[in-house]
Amino acid sequence: MTDLSKARILLDPNEVPKEWVNILPDLPTPMTPLINPMNGKPAPFEMAAAIFPKECVIQEVSQEPTIPIPKELREIYAKTYRPTPLHRALSLERELGLKGDKIKIFYKNESISPTGSHKPNTAIAQAYFAKMDGINELVTETGAGQWGSGLSYGCSVFGIKCTVYMVRISFQQKPGRKILMRSFNADVHASPSRFTEAGKSYYDKDPEHPGSLGIAISEAVEHSLRSDQIRYSLGSVVNFVCLHQTVIGQESQIQLKKAGIEAPDIVIGCMGGGSNFSGLMIPYARDKIRGITPDIKIIGVEPTACPSVCKGKYTWDYGDTAKKAPIVKMHTLGHNFIPSPIHAGGLRYHGIAPIVSNLYNNKIIEASMHHQLDVIKAGFLFAKAEGVLPAPETDHAIKEAIDQALLAKENDEEKVILFNFSGHGFFDLLAYKEYMTGNLENYELPDEKIQESLNDPDMPQIDESSF
Amino acid sequence: MTDLSKARILLDPNEVPKEWVNILPDLPTPMTPLINPMNGKPAPFEMAAAIFPKECVIQEVSQEPTIPIPKELREIYAKTYRPTPLHRALSLERELGLKGDKIKIFYKNESISPTGSHKPNTAIAQAYFAKMDGINELVTETGAGQWGSGLSYGCSVFGIKCTVYMVRISFQQKPGRKILMRSFNADVHASPSRFTEAGKSYYDKDPEHPGSLGIAISEAVEHSLRSDQIRYSLGSVVNFVCLHQTVIGQESQIQLKKAGIEAPDIVIGCMGGGSNFSGLMIPYARDKIRGITPDIKIIGVEPTACPSVCKGKYTWDYGDTAKKAPIVKMHTLGHNFIPSPIHAGGLRYHGIAPIVSNLYNNKIIEASMHHQLDVIKAGFLFAKAEGVLPAPETDHAIKEAIDQALLAKENDEEKVILFNFSGHGFFDLLAYKEYMTGNLENYELPDEKIQESLNDPDMPQIDESSF
Repeated sequence: MTDLSKARILLDPNEVPKEWVNILPDLPTPMTPLINPMNGKPAPFEMAAAIFPKECVIQEVSQEPTIPIPKELREIYAKTYRPTPLHRALSLERELGLKGDKIKIFYKNESISPTGSHKPNTAIAQAYFAKMDGINELVTETGAGQWGSGLSYGCSVFGIKCTVYMVRISFQQKPGRKILMRSFNADVHASPSRFTEAGKSYYDKDPEHPGSLGIAISEAVEHSLRSDQIRYSLGSVVNFVCLHQTVIGQESQIQLKKAGIEAPDIVIGCMGGGSNFSGLMIPYARDKIRGITPDIKIIGVEPTACPSVCKGKYTWDYGDTAKKAPIVKMHTLGHNFIPSPIHAGGLRYHGIAPIVSNLYNNKIIEASMHHQLDVIKAGFLFAKAEGVLPAPETDHAIKEAIDQALLAKENDEEKVILFNFSGHGFFDLLAYKEYMTGNLENYELPDEKIQESLNDPDMPQIDESSF
Repeated sequence: MTDLSKARILLDPNEVPKEWVNILPDLPTPMTPLINPMNGKPAPFEMAAAIFPKECVIQEVSQEPTIPIPKELREIYAKTYRPTPLHRALSLERELGLKGDKIKIFYKNESISPTGSHKPNTAIAQAYFAKMDGINELVTETGAGQWGSGLSYGCSVFGIKCTVYMVRISFQQKPGRKILMRSFNADVHASPSRFTEAGKSYYDKDPEHPGSLGIAISEAVEHSLRSDQIRYSLGSVVNFVCLHQTVIGQESQIQLKKAGIEAPDIVIGCMGGGSNFSGLMIPYARDKIRGITPDIKIIGVEPTACPSVCKGKYTWDYGDTAKKAPIVKMHTLGHNFIPSPIHAGGLRYHGIAPIVSNLYNNKIIEASMHHQLDVIKAGFLFAKAEGVLPAPETDHAIKEAIDQALLAKENDEEKVILFNFSGHGFFDLLAYKEYMTGNLENYELPDEKIQESLNDPDMPQIDESSF
């Protein structure tokens, strides 16, 4: 390759997108509302605005096809890390024996953000909108810590206090993320904590209780309701978070054009709550719906241990196990489903973003799933070829991209494959260690376990005819 | 700031420098040779070429003002991470109360490389030249692991085997770096090991011996002499390593011009062996020597716990405690000097690059030193302002940049300050944790301890008149 600008495609900071892409008005079927878990009725604006920053609540239901990104926010993106590079995975292609230029693999590198993943894209936005509302504290929960560190960083940018309830078992096992959050000035509490009623009931019985995401959400929501000056913050699932992530896909479209490619054939992202996948694919999904690129294949990738889309049901469910968060219509395994402890902690969510669910249900996007051993092996191959160690979550997208490339090779087809490199694995090295020492295992998931969870009488019953 | 391209200045991958800047022919006084530790005489070419790749040995003594970067190497740089961004530290400036545009702080961000520091710049080059020689294995030692991971990555790019002897205490305390190296396919041995004679003598007595860099060097050198197909690799100190790093400074010159700045007033880097500092400052030092920018201030920053330049002596000394590496003329604290266990492990070297020593002795560059608590505090401030957590080594450059900015503010002077952000601190979080919990300490270094080390009868006696 003599034109090196086609091997790693950079954009000028002035090219940070000026707007977010809102897929809602283009969805083939209308979006279902957020439901108040207290009464089973659509949550009124005021209720949502007591939880989230106002502008985010407006974005959550906006029917505008694009929403402007405030200038101050674009400046933060630009001076810190955006636009992120788009790489042609030339070494990986060679490793896979792809000859010539028939099959091209590109990846969008979100790992160069301050906390090493796509999370700051929405964290900075939420902190900015909170600041605009005069809010002085954001509170959230975190499992492995990617989201907690993203929000800690976002809040530090705008001088807002950040409080994070971190599942105790992760708090103890992942000290790195905890220190990173604290270095951004966040208050990080092991959950269950003694600082909330929700936590105290567990803490008093067992101060070493390992905790769960459900308990941590309950603590964060309770904490956020303490004062008018505090809001709760979410790192995935809801529409406005997916919206904020669309900078990823938009940039990739400009970058591919710079590489002489009108549109990719296959777009791939891993799915936990669905935000990084949405961020990459929404601009492509819109073009597909509008008939501009009707044949584009868009694939969300899940762990076999937690296949919300591949094996779940499209139904109403609580967003959290504690039943404090709004009820949404989504592909879900049931809010009481507890996935096996795979290393891709960010993909251990029982549901998926309503936007992703809607698009899947309308056959605009597809889903696939892979076993832990296969994805870590793929990530390992990628690291050796491309030199960047991926997060275990990202490994899912890599595995699918490799499979698609090899399939195209077998069929002797021309394909441009694009995937989202959602984060690096510098804080998740244990997965690779276990792989290298032969201690990594797959988790089989019997269908009965999913059925049992979905048939739980605890699932919400929502009467759609009432709204 | 409305022109965002001046807040984070990017270059196109095609703008990766085409040549390295060789300072040797411009040095005010001639460079002293490498001395064979066996007989005290200048090491002949053949001897050096039995240790290092041939091209590197040629570069070590070349009098050409520039040396072309091979095309294949430029492609690797370009498709992976180079040119690296140059950031204007706008948030840090605001944090320091710098108003208007009178004082500008820029930093060159080497942390986005595959292993998070500047080390791959020379690692990739050495692996490439080794491959050209038909060498199939490079072996090195590493302390904290930055260099070991850099070389592991470089070797994986060219399919060369990499063997790393890692000081056992770090091997145990920094499992992250070890896993990263292994993910790039390197063989990593805790040193002292049972695989070399040098290691075995310690290992047999105590299999849990904590090790030292000196023993690890001995093991690596012994290992490298086992076969014609193996070479030893160094990550700092020698001329050719400093040469490879000059991509940093050259890129920054182009980037500053894009920001409308002809030349900075102050150039800053931290110094351990001296390679990241050399990489940034050599192009500026050359312009200073040539009278193009006679007033530019160039400052290398050391830890107070290991002040080779600030308090050491310019004399002949062994490059390593084991006295296996060549003897060089440099600023040194004596090869038997053992610095306190500061977190900036990469700055715990008893000497400094002969190039840096020569420039300092000729008053082209200056040196300063700072205490551990002050530098970590500065890094902490930087992280909160700019969102990137620095390596403890890098904190030294940050501390000096802040001090220089505040001095200029006090004197109401216009200044452009440039420093090298040599690496991120994702693998060094313990330093920040100790700072936050009040457990970080300074290490006083009594002058007598340095004198004692320099007066050690073990120091080499070299007769300069004999060559």
